[in-house]
Amino acid sequence: MVYFPVFGDKQDQYLQQLISPEKDVEGFNFIYYHNFYHNVRFLDPPTKEQKSILPCKPLAMVKILDYLGVHNKHLHYGNRLYGKKIFVVNRSEIVGRPVAALLANDGSTVYSLDINNMQKFTRGDDLLMQSHKVTDLDSQEYSLEKVAPQCDVIITGVPSDSYKFPTELVSNGTMVINFSSAKNFDDSIKQKAGLYVPSIGKVTVSMLLRNLLRLIRNGEIRERAKK
Amino acid sequence: MVYFPVFGDKQDQYLQQLISPEKDVEGFNFIYYHNFYHNVRFLDPPTKEQKSILPCKPLAMVKILDYLGVHNKHLHYGNRLYGKKIFVVNRSEIVGRPVAALLANDGSTVYSLDINNMQKFTRGDDLLMQSHKVTDLDSQEYSLEKVAPQCDVIITGVPSDSYKFPTELVSNGTMVINFSSAKNFDDSIKQKAGLYVPSIGKVTVSMLLRNLLRLIRNGEIRERAKK
Repeated sequence: MVYFPVFGDKQDQYLQQLISPEKDVEGFNFIYYHNFYHNVRFLDPPTKEQKSILPCKPLAMVKILDYLGVHNKHLHYGNRLYGKKIFVVNRSEIVGRPVAALLANDGSTVYSLDINNMQKFTRGDDLLMQSHKVTDLDSQEYSLEKVAPQCDVIITGVPSDSYKFPTELVSNGTMVINFSSAKNFDDSIKQKAGLYVPSIGKVTVSMLLRNLLRLIRNGEIRERAKK
Repeated sequence: MVYFPVFGDKQDQYLQQLISPEKDVEGFNFIYYHNFYHNVRFLDPPTKEQKSILPCKPLAMVKILDYLGVHNKHLHYGNRLYGKKIFVVNRSEIVGRPVAALLANDGSTVYSLDINNMQKFTRGDDLLMQSHKVTDLDSQEYSLEKVAPQCDVIITGVPSDSYKFPTELVSNGTMVINFSSAKNFDDSIKQKAGLYVPSIGKVTVSMLLRNLLRLIRNGEIRERAKK
């Protein structure tokens, strides 16, 4: 078993690609990565039996939002975040960016903030695009102060104990989720948030196991097809 | 059986008060009306067995919003619309105003528009108030054009065939409900709304029957208490 991070640098990315896609519970093999960013949900598009593997942490985020009732089950599968505005602080390759992509693919408008700028991830106002596109936003028109209070969901993942998201920019009743191991909100958030999820680690581990089951099932489907 | 409107004027209001509260399926007796506006949910506050009767149409609206997933079942009962912004066009005594009141009592911020002005119905940002209060809004700062696109839900009830709510003020993915017998949206709304409910008549009739059952049950509880 390979448990990442190993070296914690670019060499890890190389190692990830060496792992057989049939054993990749983290979903970081290029084939899964490509499917994921392009909103391709099956490995075998014509028959649509083998589901593609999604990276655990972003998948955990989706499952949590679904559980919290942010997804609307009356909307078409794949569009269930339509109309929702989601703010994501952090755009790391490992979580922040894939989370933004996954939530935009499900129909929401995602505002992704990192130390450099703010970007918008969206499939377009009418969801006509099959997968999301990313645009850089003008920092005057789209400042943290202007955008955050309008969002239905605020997600943070800043790996620093000193960082705190300003509670006064959270509108009352907003769904608030922190995926960093550092505490990105101080306790005042409990007075503002509709629901507050301070960490997502346990759900992430469940998703790892879920991916393992998915890999086994995909293997079985391929075995059956051979016979 | 008395079927309103009878005279269609103030005399109807007088007749409504003559009907025994034990038989008032419409929930327009003063005692129900008072409870309703003050967010008092039981007729017998200490024991809380007999539920107060809510007017059918506003109740139908609540049930529809609940079904559509606008209420969040993870929030405390009575606060499940916390954080939601709802726009209501029409402030008639029979539906528009009670709808606004009921939705505000459940925790949402309601913007209520009629031909005179816009009002806000809310229990306060932190829901500390037991029932909603109403404030007149400044028409410059709170115009239809500014407020409507920010709302999660838009509800119309204008009894006029010529009235159409401007589709361009509806943000993509908004929940849209019309309770007027006139069609307050043109077909372009289907391209914008997340979910669109063109009429609520059938649910209203169900709520009438529900209130009838509620009255019977309340009667049984009182009978039992006598023994």
